[in-house]
Amino acid sequence: MIINDEMYMRIALQLAAAAAGQTGINPVVGCVLVKDGRVVGMGAHLKRGDAHAEIHALNMAGAEAAGSTAYVTLEPCSHHGRTGPCSDRLIREGVKRVVVAAVDPNPVVAGSGIARLRAQGIEVTEGVLAAESEALNEAFNKYIVTRRPFVTVKTASTLDGKVAAAGGDSKWITGEAARGYVHTLRHRHQAILTGVGTVMADDPQLTTRLPVPGLSPVRIIADSMLRIPLESKLLHDGEAPVIVLTTAEAPEDRRRALEALGVQVIDCGPGPAVDLEAALARLGELEIGSVLVEAGGKLAGAFLERRLADKLVLFFAPKIIGGGAEAPGTFDFPGFRAMRQAIRLERMTVETFGEDVCFTGYPSYEAADS
Amino acid sequence: MIINDEMYMRIALQLAAAAAGQTGINPVVGCVLVKDGRVVGMGAHLKRGDAHAEIHALNMAGAEAAGSTAYVTLEPCSHHGRTGPCSDRLIREGVKRVVVAAVDPNPVVAGSGIARLRAQGIEVTEGVLAAESEALNEAFNKYIVTRRPFVTVKTASTLDGKVAAAGGDSKWITGEAARGYVHTLRHRHQAILTGVGTVMADDPQLTTRLPVPGLSPVRIIADSMLRIPLESKLLHDGEAPVIVLTTAEAPEDRRRALEALGVQVIDCGPGPAVDLEAALARLGELEIGSVLVEAGGKLAGAFLERRLADKLVLFFAPKIIGGGAEAPGTFDFPGFRAMRQAIRLERMTVETFGEDVCFTGYPSYEAADS
Repeated sequence: MIINDEMYMRIALQLAAAAAGQTGINPVVGCVLVKDGRVVGMGAHLKRGDAHAEIHALNMAGAEAAGSTAYVTLEPCSHHGRTGPCSDRLIREGVKRVVVAAVDPNPVVAGSGIARLRAQGIEVTEGVLAAESEALNEAFNKYIVTRRPFVTVKTASTLDGKVAAAGGDSKWITGEAARGYVHTLRHRHQAILTGVGTVMADDPQLTTRLPVPGLSPVRIIADSMLRIPLESKLLHDGEAPVIVLTTAEAPEDRRRALEALGVQVIDCGPGPAVDLEAALARLGELEIGSVLVEAGGKLAGAFLERRLADKLVLFFAPKIIGGGAEAPGTFDFPGFRAMRQAIRLERMTVETFGEDVCFTGYPSYEAADS
Repeated sequence: MIINDEMYMRIALQLAAAAAGQTGINPVVGCVLVKDGRVVGMGAHLKRGDAHAEIHALNMAGAEAAGSTAYVTLEPCSHHGRTGPCSDRLIREGVKRVVVAAVDPNPVVAGSGIARLRAQGIEVTEGVLAAESEALNEAFNKYIVTRRPFVTVKTASTLDGKVAAAGGDSKWITGEAARGYVHTLRHRHQAILTGVGTVMADDPQLTTRLPVPGLSPVRIIADSMLRIPLESKLLHDGEAPVIVLTTAEAPEDRRRALEALGVQVIDCGPGPAVDLEAALARLGELEIGSVLVEAGGKLAGAFLERRLADKLVLFFAPKIIGGGAEAPGTFDFPGFRAMRQAIRLERMTVETFGEDVCFTGYPSYEAADS
């Protein structure tokens, strides 16, 4: 590797990536300060409400900041949010040059941070490893513009596309390594969403369980009639908040019983099914910027049908279970009549976890209307 | 790469692989003769009934064969088949040392070729790259012992495991690169097998179509009631023989009409479905040593249900089509009630062809009885 702008930006990206999952609706950002051939400061934004990456790096650099070059994975902010504008601080400390990966899509920034630096005579280079930075903040990039959470739908199936055997047995489809990655995904999302059927069948906790501590997501249950058993583990374990999405058809006494357990019950339309668009709008208002859907075929399929899934993570175990229509599939929705209308998975990557294979990609719904 | 036994054996394996698909029920075999640090002869078995690899290599070497080392991917034969025993010829030409990859599983050889060489004072080294040689001859290795063809089942589906949209549209699931590989598989199998439903729906030719000429497999149609339309393309194109597998329930006049078109009609049990075990036994008698199954979910599923599939080649296109139970899946068979009973795909490899992903592996049916 040659020492150049990209190399320092890659270090800044590593700092940002290290905080993935712990900044809530804020982006992850890394910053490296370099002066006379030496790294003099490093920082990352670690928690919403705490200092931004640039501030941590400037604090580390102290007097060395003057005359340095700052590598920042996201455009420095120009507004007074929970902290003062980072661009002002960079100017005040005498930073000479700023190298930026991605422009901040936040409408209150959107280039104004860079403009502010340039207006003060600071040399700014944009777009160094921009795509890498944008990938780290894919959830933030959607949320900050739409106020709707970024939705990742995760499935685990056999090679014949089944999530359970005929009769319902599903323990286990994937192996330990794949399940460990799923818990990493839980850590990296603010919320996890499943259907009441899964809660009734498996009584899961939906927490993050890893060899080291991780952050557990808010647990969200889609439950149009509030059928969730009041003795369900996740209603009592206190591991993370619980939100139940329901409809106007749900019985009022069930709602009161859940609220008495500390559950936030949210109305999502008149029914019979939970209105997923309304649900995502409400979750956005609650500052939930990312949701991991781990659900059965009906609910996972509904996210595709409504074109609400932003990302898919599809595990395949090297198994064939059979069972025809009696064995449930990954996505159960009416779908399309012509193969050319299929939802396409773009920018797909393929990874192996132990014996299992994981496809990750971004669904494109464009052909559906053709 | 260091010059050693493995390096020369790798060349011999490349010679053998070059003839994949063109030796019928015979194995592919390569041979390299090396003397005083130079390759002095190379050969491969190219066609059933023609010379074996060792003979071609010895002919090329001429007088140089004396005192050379022979690298052979399969144990030299010791029996009088269509050609004389290769081990005798190696002895007669004065070859000093023979390096063998795999022992010939053919019951009439099975180590006796190596024993014959050793009895004449020739140094024999066994097992150099044996697994690679065995993989090249996986079909031969089964056929020569069981007299049943090696069965490869190929599927192409969306990521939700569908081989067509609801309503039946399936054009196209995979892209050109994947379809090119399927035609390569056709070249490498002696026969292709599909169901009459596929013939009625698509009127396919089931030939090998590649940018350069390839060998077309014998076309086999499973058709319990002889419903195949007499005007079907493959009954008239003369591209390769056609065999129809049927049952005692099939109408006699249909059988006569097909036979009049040059089709070989084979009875496989009393019905209602074609007895696949009986079919494979009959195909083996006809010296068909490998069959590529390209069929719908019912027939592909039946091969798994009857535990008759030796190898699976599963293509996945980066698409989701939906359709629930109305969209047909890759394998439609009753399957298992417990996930632990699932058929496991062993020695699985994952390759990409353009945008499509191909899983290749060997099904293990062991857990099914647990």
